[in-house]
Amino acid sequence: MALIVQKYGGSSVSDAASIKRVAKRIAEAKRAGNDVVAVVSAMGDTTDELIDLAQQITPLPPQREMDILLTAGERISMSLLAMAINNLGVKAKSFTGQQAGLITDAVHGKARIVDVVPHRIRETVEKGSVAIVAGFQGVNPDAGDVTTLGRGGSDTTAVALAAGLGADVCEIYTDVDGVFTADPRIVPTARKIDRISYEEMLEMAASGAKVLVLRCVEYARRYGVPVHVRSTFTTHPGTLVTNTPSDTSEEEPMEAPIISGVAHDRSEAKITVVGVPDRPGMAARIFEAVAGAGVNIDMIVQNVSAAATGLTDISFTLPADQVADGTAALDALRVEVGFASLQIDDQIGKLSLVGAGMKSHPGVSAKFFGALRDANINIEMISTSEIRISVVTRADSLDDAVRAVHTAFDLDADAEAVVYAGTGR
Amino acid sequence: MALIVQKYGGSSVSDAASIKRVAKRIAEAKRAGNDVVAVVSAMGDTTDELIDLAQQITPLPPQREMDILLTAGERISMSLLAMAINNLGVKAKSFTGQQAGLITDAVHGKARIVDVVPHRIRETVEKGSVAIVAGFQGVNPDAGDVTTLGRGGSDTTAVALAAGLGADVCEIYTDVDGVFTADPRIVPTARKIDRISYEEMLEMAASGAKVLVLRCVEYARRYGVPVHVRSTFTTHPGTLVTNTPSDTSEEEPMEAPIISGVAHDRSEAKITVVGVPDRPGMAARIFEAVAGAGVNIDMIVQNVSAAATGLTDISFTLPADQVADGTAALDALRVEVGFASLQIDDQIGKLSLVGAGMKSHPGVSAKFFGALRDANINIEMISTSEIRISVVTRADSLDDAVRAVHTAFDLDADAEAVVYAGTGR
Repeated sequence: MALIVQKYGGSSVSDAASIKRVAKRIAEAKRAGNDVVAVVSAMGDTTDELIDLAQQITPLPPQREMDILLTAGERISMSLLAMAINNLGVKAKSFTGQQAGLITDAVHGKARIVDVVPHRIRETVEKGSVAIVAGFQGVNPDAGDVTTLGRGGSDTTAVALAAGLGADVCEIYTDVDGVFTADPRIVPTARKIDRISYEEMLEMAASGAKVLVLRCVEYARRYGVPVHVRSTFTTHPGTLVTNTPSDTSEEEPMEAPIISGVAHDRSEAKITVVGVPDRPGMAARIFEAVAGAGVNIDMIVQNVSAAATGLTDISFTLPADQVADGTAALDALRVEVGFASLQIDDQIGKLSLVGAGMKSHPGVSAKFFGALRDANINIEMISTSEIRISVVTRADSLDDAVRAVHTAFDLDADAEAVVYAGTGR
Repeated sequence: MALIVQKYGGSSVSDAASIKRVAKRIAEAKRAGNDVVAVVSAMGDTTDELIDLAQQITPLPPQREMDILLTAGERISMSLLAMAINNLGVKAKSFTGQQAGLITDAVHGKARIVDVVPHRIRETVEKGSVAIVAGFQGVNPDAGDVTTLGRGGSDTTAVALAAGLGADVCEIYTDVDGVFTADPRIVPTARKIDRISYEEMLEMAASGAKVLVLRCVEYARRYGVPVHVRSTFTTHPGTLVTNTPSDTSEEEPMEAPIISGVAHDRSEAKITVVGVPDRPGMAARIFEAVAGAGVNIDMIVQNVSAAATGLTDISFTLPADQVADGTAALDALRVEVGFASLQIDDQIGKLSLVGAGMKSHPGVSAKFFGALRDANINIEMISTSEIRISVVTRADSLDDAVRAVHTAFDLDADAEAVVYAGTGR
């Protein structure tokens, strides 16, 4: 008998019929002899509708009130799901983040979990009931106020609860079959990955793979929670994220592939600070200011300074929706640093090749850059880690670049597998 | 500087525009130098929509989950209202029933308030903020579960908070100008009552006047909370419910009217138990069984038994929606009691004349029955208290009966007052 934490997103509980379908799935897991805790997001578009209501009231709602408003969404989905499970003859009770013991800091809108004390959940499960838990929310115990966890919050709730309860697995139900070697919309021959390590999944998530958010994977790695990403619509196994390296198992250790997949990201922009005096400390001053404005800097390139002028250009990438904050921080520095101008470029794309195997396999980067050269892709920036190579390209050549790299590393599936991925069987 | 508790119902906060209008009203009360606590119901039809969603899932949802579901409604309205007030430059924070210290028993769906410990509300008000509180909900501290208070719950929340905070007044905002001497839809010349005592208001509410629920008036009387029933749409004074008798003041004690008003009620039905053996204890056995099924018995009539048969008929009125429970309880008694049959009549109406003055004024009942006789109204049942006379009539003659009694006791307003009530100035 296993203790399973399951997580169902908003698209899995968008109306009464889909809530009943999820209830059936949970009841089956329970009847199969497992203890089941299910974390649920708000129904379909509920969160967007609540945000829209708030916007009709004021463009800048206080974040504390926004959190109270948004948590109404999970309250609705969790109670309906508990009703639906009870209706199938399986006992179920729903719990808010606060009732489930999700303790957070006081940062409304993007609170961090500081502790999980799931006494009521444990007690409920031990009494033979299914526990339904509201995703995305917690409580700041100092103020007694409700908080929300921000983007990907429900996945993080599920992994945190699984860690706190010592669950055997955390199943993340989604509308795709698992994690793929590339986005199947760009690479129709992309394969589903059966197993992947936390480290590789972290790099994939950080590089734009959208199935799991970075924060959830970080949490799972820290507490060693096995995460199973799978489809709400099938019973096929999905992708298992654990400590085991990519797609290896005890039976086939020699077949471990070098590469897990190709991730891409269109959500970044590039700022170039033009004409920076080439003196020590200038770059540090610039990045201090930008980071101080809450901007997440990703890749950085500093040109060799022109000897004649003593000036250099510094480029960095950042989330496109933080460009305004970034430029404001830089404008405030213009006199002090004495740079000439700022250039904003939001037509960039980022491609990342991820694989734990590349650490020990020479020639990966040669093959990578060769594939991009053969496909006539111009590379603007490069960054690497032990298990990842990323490049920035023009946005309109990103798809070609992804396909070229995917093929070069033999990640393409055969025809049968394509049909499998495509139909979502 | 006064401490005012205000309560706004669902029709006052049905959309963003009306929420902004209520916010303005609250901000004005605050800017006038008052401390303000506002209790708010769910927006417009939200509660009905949530009930409908639950019905799509299961016909018999567990009441604990139903309470979690329904409390999402106030969560939405209270946070939006707090946002709207902040947007006007007045500080405001919203609180759930639990956060506001509304402690209840464990009876989900119709919990009773057992204590009010409004530390956070007091603290918020003392810091100069408006406190917005979710109506209709509380917490059962033994289980840590959210409860709802049932019908009229938000009014009761407001009065309970006013009592707990020692507020100067509890203002109940509604879509009419106050409590009227009769329903203006039946009696166009009905007058707004300026002042009424708790006792009279209790009798009016128990007799079908819908402006305030019985439970809220009971709470107000027990804790001596002055209740001001007034319109959301005007700034005119409404009806003040206090210890002072009906429409009297220090300036005009001699003008105290005998009668406060005429209430009517179409929501009851009558069950007649036919052919009950006229032995001691039979009536008690019948009413024990019916009350044991949770039915609220109102008026009772037992016919004189026919000497020849030794059988009698017992009739009683009850809420029409409890007829099924009542007949089920009686059917179970049929063999034991040995009655012949049950007759159900849901075409009855109840009319009640209420006034503290009738205690000391002889001739009230003569005038009352005379007016009904002159209007050709057939009376089927009668019950009285010190300050009320009620009769049951055919449903289709109820309106005529109300008008006849209203006129007989000189309650009709002159033409000007009719216009006033009609236009809601």
